[in-house]
Amino acid sequence: MLTEVVVRKALQGVKDPELHKSLTDLGMIRQVRIEGSRVHITLALTMMGCPLKDQMSRDVKAAVGALEGVSEVTVELTEMTDEEKRRIGLGTKQDEEGSALKFNKVKRVIAVMSGKGGVGKSLVSGLLAVSLRRAGKEVGVLDADITGPSIPKMFFPNGARPFTSPFGLVAPESKSGIKVMSINLLLPEEGQAVIWRGPLISSAIKQFWGDIYWGELDYLIVDLPPGTSDASLTVMQSLPISGIVLVSSPQDLAGMVVRKAADMAQMTHTPMLGLIENMSYFECPDTHKQHEIFGPSHAEETARRIDVPFLGRLPVDPQIAITCDAGRIEDLPAAAFEPIAAQLLQMLEED
Amino acid sequence: MLTEVVVRKALQGVKDPELHKSLTDLGMIRQVRIEGSRVHITLALTMMGCPLKDQMSRDVKAAVGALEGVSEVTVELTEMTDEEKRRIGLGTKQDEEGSALKFNKVKRVIAVMSGKGGVGKSLVSGLLAVSLRRAGKEVGVLDADITGPSIPKMFFPNGARPFTSPFGLVAPESKSGIKVMSINLLLPEEGQAVIWRGPLISSAIKQFWGDIYWGELDYLIVDLPPGTSDASLTVMQSLPISGIVLVSSPQDLAGMVVRKAADMAQMTHTPMLGLIENMSYFECPDTHKQHEIFGPSHAEETARRIDVPFLGRLPVDPQIAITCDAGRIEDLPAAAFEPIAAQLLQMLEED
Repeated sequence: MLTEVVVRKALQGVKDPELHKSLTDLGMIRQVRIEGSRVHITLALTMMGCPLKDQMSRDVKAAVGALEGVSEVTVELTEMTDEEKRRIGLGTKQDEEGSALKFNKVKRVIAVMSGKGGVGKSLVSGLLAVSLRRAGKEVGVLDADITGPSIPKMFFPNGARPFTSPFGLVAPESKSGIKVMSINLLLPEEGQAVIWRGPLISSAIKQFWGDIYWGELDYLIVDLPPGTSDASLTVMQSLPISGIVLVSSPQDLAGMVVRKAADMAQMTHTPMLGLIENMSYFECPDTHKQHEIFGPSHAEETARRIDVPFLGRLPVDPQIAITCDAGRIEDLPAAAFEPIAAQLLQMLEED
Repeated sequence: MLTEVVVRKALQGVKDPELHKSLTDLGMIRQVRIEGSRVHITLALTMMGCPLKDQMSRDVKAAVGALEGVSEVTVELTEMTDEEKRRIGLGTKQDEEGSALKFNKVKRVIAVMSGKGGVGKSLVSGLLAVSLRRAGKEVGVLDADITGPSIPKMFFPNGARPFTSPFGLVAPESKSGIKVMSINLLLPEEGQAVIWRGPLISSAIKQFWGDIYWGELDYLIVDLPPGTSDASLTVMQSLPISGIVLVSSPQDLAGMVVRKAADMAQMTHTPMLGLIENMSYFECPDTHKQHEIFGPSHAEETARRIDVPFLGRLPVDPQIAITCDAGRIEDLPAAAFEPIAAQLLQMLEED
């Protein structure tokens, strides 16, 4: 007879590949549900972003699938509660701070935000990281866009994986030495959806900050997703942000949504460094005429309305898309971005 | 002496402008906190999107601010629990269905999704609504992008407000008769941030579906925000979606994020109608040459990978941005969109 006891006994043999203990002993098998010949198991991970979760899932399926009378095994992944983690002696400290936090020394955290999607936040995050790195700084990029992460593709033509260390997961480095952390570095396939509601999104971002070993950084650039919901709130409330760089596009519509982002920054008392307009114009390679392909600019007006410095314009350039898609953002000359980066660097190093 | 009793007594005189009863009697004053001369009040609204919330907030501040010994009044808005609503006889039914739902007859719900931001979901939602309307259909647009709503600006050059009716809030109509509901139609200022975590986002979307009087519609177009988190999940789980239209841009990066959206659609068993590529090229007005300003297209390849029909390409056209910013999307000839709309209409009316 297929019973919960039989299933749990079979699972006794499956070990956590890192902790080398049985999943059962670790209390990770939160639930076993049997419906006829189908077995549904809820596996509580110590960390949702655990790079070994797929292996564990497979091991669980293999062990239970081998039992007599089992036609199908489904495994649902969830994360242990703090209480569950404490019970197995895993270090969630009372203050909820991440385990790597005490080894990290991050001088300044810069968030790149826009409210609106697709205006080029990730491009600005990437270019800013590259510029700061070229200026000799130690730089990291934290991709806080959990459901639509764009950062890894720009920096890693062949993908990358974080590796484990005694201090926590270590963010992989790009070829010029920029440390990058993103949910996509943990997924088996980059096109896989991360269908998480707000609390999991927030928890992932907090882990990227507190459970990742960043080491010593002059700058950590945080690439925010669109919107003023969980991800942005968590970043503004849980990370020590030195300043926000706002990104807009020429459309009046984008300006309206950027005003929402600025409104949120004000309400959470997060300083704003300035506004950058992306996709301002396209220079025709034949006539060298500049075309305002998304309509006339409203960014300077927006900057005035929200009372922040206007940092400059970036053109639409097919080379940017091609180079970023190829994972070679570090090879971009990015002449248009240099004066913007110089302004930001000056502002930041002054205080 | 400033006590809670004194404050609550003062609030006895403040009435809900719609229900014409005292906020105290309605149980809307959830908490009164007094710190020296500062009073903090938590006001529980019957509906978070209530258009009269600012008036109520002002009335509360005025009534309490007039008390002796009060230097500052802050009002925090929250939403009543179902239990609280039931207590004052407000119609949250056992099945949690909205109050307007029984009066609505919506034949088909189409969600427009991309995963990635800024690829033109709202433009496609708007153009699709306009095309269906031109084909003689009764059409509504539900803007499910709560933190970055783009729909109202396209349809209402002078803004619009929903009005109250015995059936619930009524969505305002555009000049060609398209019904539109969006959080921005409820805000006092369009640039105001809506800083809500996931559960409030979900609750607002459910209210737009169930508490709004849509009447009889052939099509309700749902404009989803970027990402695969709360808003998308709620729409896929709570609304009877006939099909999803996916929108991408030429970049490989966008293709990757669209694959995530498709992955989510598959996992939630929501049918996909096809993929549209937006911002495919810019036709130089001088040379009439088409420039692939966001790099070469990857959309057909993406459509093949996720196994959906490729519906067509839309160019970047400054006139589109200008016309949408001016609230005149209904005046766009949108020649490029007509064949796409025709394909969709055929698919939809067939089944």
